Amino acid sequence: MASEVYIAGVGMTKFGKSDRSLAELMVEAATKAFAESRVGSIDYILIGVMNAEEFTGESNVAAMIADQLGLSGVPSSRVETASSTGSAVFESGLYAVASGYHRNVLIIAGEKMTHLPTARTTKILAEVIERRERSYGASMPALAAMITQRYQYEAGLSAERMQSILGKVAIKNHYNGSLNPFAQFRKLVSETDYHNSKWISTPLRAYDCAPITDGAVAVVLTSDKRLIKISGIGHATDTLAVRHRDSFTSFRSTRLAAYQAYSMAKVNPSDISLAEVHDAFTMFEIIGTEDLGFFPPKQGWMALEEGVTSIKGKLPINPSGGLKARGHPVGASGLAQIAEVVWQLRGEVEVRRQVPGARIGLTQNIGGLANNNLVIILERTDRYRAIPVYWKPQFDPGWPEPKEAFDPDPEVGTGTVETFTTIYTTPEGIPSPLHLAFVRTDLGQTILTRSREGNLEIGLKVQFEKEEDFIYIRPISSPATVSDSIKQWLRTTLSPPKRKEENP
Amino acid sequence: MASEVYIAGVGMTKFGKSDRSLAELMVEAATKAFAESRVGSIDYILIGVMNAEEFTGESNVAAMIADQLGLSGVPSSRVETASSTGSAVFESGLYAVASGYHRNVLIIAGEKMTHLPTARTTKILAEVIERRERSYGASMPALAAMITQRYQYEAGLSAERMQSILGKVAIKNHYNGSLNPFAQFRKLVSETDYHNSKWISTPLRAYDCAPITDGAVAVVLTSDKRLIKISGIGHATDTLAVRHRDSFTSFRSTRLAAYQAYSMAKVNPSDISLAEVHDAFTMFEIIGTEDLGFFPPKQGWMALEEGVTSIKGKLPINPSGGLKARGHPVGASGLAQIAEVVWQLRGEVEVRRQVPGARIGLTQNIGGLANNNLVIILERTDRYRAIPVYWKPQFDPGWPEPKEAFDPDPEVGTGTVETFTTIYTTPEGIPSPLHLAFVRTDLGQTILTRSREGNLEIGLKVQFEKEEDFIYIRPISSPATVSDSIKQWLRTTLSPPKRKEENP
Repeated sequence: MASEVYIAGVGMTKFGKSDRSLAELMVEAATKAFAESRVGSIDYILIGVMNAEEFTGESNVAAMIADQLGLSGVPSSRVETASSTGSAVFESGLYAVASGYHRNVLIIAGEKMTHLPTARTTKILAEVIERRERSYGASMPALAAMITQRYQYEAGLSAERMQSILGKVAIKNHYNGSLNPFAQFRKLVSETDYHNSKWISTPLRAYDCAPITDGAVAVVLTSDKRLIKISGIGHATDTLAVRHRDSFTSFRSTRLAAYQAYSMAKVNPSDISLAEVHDAFTMFEIIGTEDLGFFPPKQGWMALEEGVTSIKGKLPINPSGGLKARGHPVGASGLAQIAEVVWQLRGEVEVRRQVPGARIGLTQNIGGLANNNLVIILERTDRYRAIPVYWKPQFDPGWPEPKEAFDPDPEVGTGTVETFTTIYTTPEGIPSPLHLAFVRTDLGQTILTRSREGNLEIGLKVQFEKEEDFIYIRPISSPATVSDSIKQWLRTTLSPPKRKEENP
Repeated sequence: MASEVYIAGVGMTKFGKSDRSLAELMVEAATKAFAESRVGSIDYILIGVMNAEEFTGESNVAAMIADQLGLSGVPSSRVETASSTGSAVFESGLYAVASGYHRNVLIIAGEKMTHLPTARTTKILAEVIERRERSYGASMPALAAMITQRYQYEAGLSAERMQSILGKVAIKNHYNGSLNPFAQFRKLVSETDYHNSKWISTPLRAYDCAPITDGAVAVVLTSDKRLIKISGIGHATDTLAVRHRDSFTSFRSTRLAAYQAYSMAKVNPSDISLAEVHDAFTMFEIIGTEDLGFFPPKQGWMALEEGVTSIKGKLPINPSGGLKARGHPVGASGLAQIAEVVWQLRGEVEVRRQVPGARIGLTQNIGGLANNNLVIILERTDRYRAIPVYWKPQFDPGWPEPKEAFDPDPEVGTGTVETFTTIYTTPEGIPSPLHLAFVRTDLGQTILTRSREGNLEIGLKVQFEKEEDFIYIRPISSPATVSDSIKQWLRTTLSPPKRKEENP
């Protein structure tokens, strides 16, 4: 049985555009966390940063930060799992303390991004995407946009309704952010602001995407009893390529991680007082609340519309403002979620933002395009929580197996559009606008394609044409002729051949 | 008390120049390690890679490798500490198993480097160096060269003798490598070959430097009892800047890590059957054997000359061929050292390379310019080793405190050359040859400087001149006039003001 690990201190810089270096931001966060931790010494340092190499030209960050802290001598390692780095480094800290090797571990996560041009940043962030999908020009917003387009279709929503829902996520999180002194954006966003914001990749607007941010967060973990303990943790990967997955609109990695975290903590979704959910894109917050078992699949938007996830609702989601309003320094966001939950559980946040009586909080952090996700559950230790002897999780991950990967792509043939987008903010070196679509071939393989025209629709029958390493699609029937029977066929064929999962 | 962790399997690719991708190399190593591990499943994957971002343009490597292994779903994190990444990822695996959270952990470390031009690789590797020293054009070989130059001075060796000693390290390790089927270089190197090899950075030649290599290694750790266990581990950082250290010729990070590892394993240097020592530069093997307590300071070269460290000597060092001959895929080398020790302890290597009766083996792995080092001790579990109740380490780390850091550099004044080099293989964008020197100012601060001429000598009195962001030095007395009294003064003033080490 693993021993208990407690949170002794948290610290955070203001998120936003900063003139300070990554090291300076990390030192500020660490100094704050150490100051409130009341631990005598630090035995081990863990640094979370996604890509200091390309964002700042620095390598060897673990040693650099130990030195900058005046702690040279103390062991220091860096942990990275793309945009879930902040949670993965926390997980490593948990193991280091639970193992008995270290008593007090200082965890620092940060990222410095705002000094680069947006196209360059978009390109660096796109390196987390599977190489083939990336080569087509897919950026993180483009993939999120196609997931949104598909969600709208599967939930049976009109384009106008979908826009209104996404807007409500942004408006809610910006309201919460306006109350958070650490947030990058502190001003309210109106429906008009949302609808006037520019397209990044249809149907996602600028206000659907978390901003580019500098910032750092630190946490001190200890084996000595404190008010907040780590009560559950889950971590799971998924296929790198989005096209290799069974579903566009539910993340297997979240569901697997949530199942582990709930089982370890012996809590159910209904026990959670508040959650910080990875809203790098507004759509991801809604999918997150479904994958975490808070709401049934394709119904998370209803809870949002009903105000359940508002700060004074039954289950506040992102009371901090989330990645959307607090900001998203990629390697730091997971640890910022944890900091918010700690403050909420301690009852330390400003009263309008405080979730009253919060006892158990959850964070969900997405790595890459949802292929390395973590779910963490924190709990107050000051009141006894009775756990039935025969406790069983009421959460069914029900995760689908990944698809059979049949690369390479076919060069001829026909298929049906599964989802699509038009990207306006393309990565460095890719012309804008760019039309992309995931297409299911008649043999049952999903591929990413480009289109010369933006006249796409889910269910559209298309023909492939190879040109300069890319598969382009051309409609072979007008959208109007896609009969309901084909749509029906599409739905029934969405369960692909199973792959037997084997160890290497 | 932490629970025991055992090594269930190891696997490794041939090291060298490879046409395969980083993922393919890692999958091969992992498949081999898993096959021999006889564990039922993998609960957690840890990936060690130093800089996949800049070497290969890939980010999100942890999820990518899990996917490539057909293990998507299984949690996966990446760990990095520059060139000691292979050991740091092993340390993280130890904690994950010892914590009770995971039973079987698959650790994979690799690097893909050979596809880039050497100047580009040298530049990427130089990003581990402190920013100011890097800005002067210091590369890893250049800093190692200055350390070598200083060692020669402090040990009272002539230039010819030093060259002969360094050559002997290369010749020994290439001999060992010739017997290792996984080694990049399998041919013997003669004294003539060594002396004919080109200057990289005086006094280091090409044969003094580990090569650029592709390769991957994997280890499966388990909590179930197996033949080899992890009996000690130590990890310590040092100042990022070489100029902030008290000594050029002994690495505090090795000494601290060794002390921890010996104390945990309850063994002394004299109990070690064989060691893999981080010979990224021939000089570092000798310094390593001194810092590990095998030989007294400045006497490691004598043990080498006497054959003590040869494969059939009393304490074989680098029976694998070391980084020098096996190759140095930076993120993988630490784990390759561990693989060699496992094979040696199991008695599985080819007879001419086998250290007979090996029971306890040690690895020492350097991160960056010796600012993030690990020492790991592995041991056979099949015979009882009596440990006296009052066991005390016979190893005195005797580490000096780091110097007071007094940046910024002075723009005028005089000082004395502490060590110097001429770099012929400069990083991308830096003209060759380049003369560099560490100089101790008359106020007791050590700074890195450039020189227009190569006529430098340790103890030379110089004057500073600022030009285009760099401090240049100009001799103010001929080397012949540096009296013994000044040399004496230099030695006595080598203990700088102490800095009180404080937590942040």
